[in-house]
Amino acid sequence: MNPRAMVFDAYGTLFDVHSVAQRCEAFWPGEGARISQLWRAKQLEWTWQRSLMRRYVPFSQVTRGALAYACAALRLALDEKRASVLMQDYRALALYPDVRAAIDALRDARHKLAILTNGSPDMIEPLVAQSGLAFDAVLSVDEVKVFKPAPDVYELAVKRLGATPGEIGFVSSNCWDALGAKSFGFRVWWINRTGAPLDRLDFEPDGVLNGLGDLPAALAQ
Amino acid sequence: MNPRAMVFDAYGTLFDVHSVAQRCEAFWPGEGARISQLWRAKQLEWTWQRSLMRRYVPFSQVTRGALAYACAALRLALDEKRASVLMQDYRALALYPDVRAAIDALRDARHKLAILTNGSPDMIEPLVAQSGLAFDAVLSVDEVKVFKPAPDVYELAVKRLGATPGEIGFVSSNCWDALGAKSFGFRVWWINRTGAPLDRLDFEPDGVLNGLGDLPAALAQ
Repeated sequence: MNPRAMVFDAYGTLFDVHSVAQRCEAFWPGEGARISQLWRAKQLEWTWQRSLMRRYVPFSQVTRGALAYACAALRLALDEKRASVLMQDYRALALYPDVRAAIDALRDARHKLAILTNGSPDMIEPLVAQSGLAFDAVLSVDEVKVFKPAPDVYELAVKRLGATPGEIGFVSSNCWDALGAKSFGFRVWWINRTGAPLDRLDFEPDGVLNGLGDLPAALAQ
Repeated sequence: MNPRAMVFDAYGTLFDVHSVAQRCEAFWPGEGARISQLWRAKQLEWTWQRSLMRRYVPFSQVTRGALAYACAALRLALDEKRASVLMQDYRALALYPDVRAAIDALRDARHKLAILTNGSPDMIEPLVAQSGLAFDAVLSVDEVKVFKPAPDVYELAVKRLGATPGEIGFVSSNCWDALGAKSFGFRVWWINRTGAPLDRLDFEPDGVLNGLGDLPAALAQ
């Protein structure tokens, strides 16, 4: 198949959200990994809960609150200076090692490339800019004021990319995001880097890959 | 204050979802607590994700899938017989030790008492029956086909109990459920048995209690 556009999730798929663990470890020795895990878990929970409550706020605000929660839960002091450094780190997350070559190969194969992300423009724009990756479009849920996996989010890509759902290939490491996109009607690849079981959400991805490095070959088939 | 009706969350508030850990431990020695934690975590995630995807299925189906996921993630074999025993255990969860006396005291004080739960009738009805607790109403999200904290769920209590949101007192140990109810307009008590931080969802409960045993006195104030 040859999708008209390949659309990527950002956090956890292109960018490693746990690259902040290193700074957390420097600030709070022995606690870096736990902070990063809890920070991410609460960030995601609140995107779902806020969407259901119809109380959307930008992802930057959700992320800042989740950092405060993680530190409070682990009884670690978080001052404004450390919070500011960590939020800045979130705008400079590391790419997964397999991303740059994969994106370059897809661009060479003339795929239209886009990002569809929970991230608000104040977070995602500096993140993409510093990565050096080039996309034809960076679409944020902030336009529709609800988070993934609401269909409104995937609909945004359809509208902005001028393609039907079936003409869009969607790539995410977050299984629930991949299946939300599949439920909406995209062609979907789940990047399952950790060998996790499939979420039981009544849908299956069109393909499961161990990493983004396998995507160009999967698309060329 | 004297609410016209006191409405309780069931799972995690009246009933200890982790009372299944004992059977899990018997089936898979050394893994009981981890299975129970992951089972609950996935169960909740999928209620939120399915609601946003507009792919509601009954809580019993979500719960059965989450058990399969937990065992798969931990690489433990789950056959139909063990699954059936554990799903039956979920219909006979233990009450927290402070529940029975609190409910009796509220009944003696002539409060109208109800349950508002994610649980589908096939799960919640046998669970309440075996507990011996008596409620004036047991309301399930199955009527509205979306899970907490969607406002439609709390609206169900308003409609079925014939009270305004401000006349309803709502009690949950799940902070996000308490705050979803507060966002809707209920008077809310968060039962914070573990000393967890408050979820950053832009609302605060009217009261925070260490256990249900403190609720009758809080209401009498």
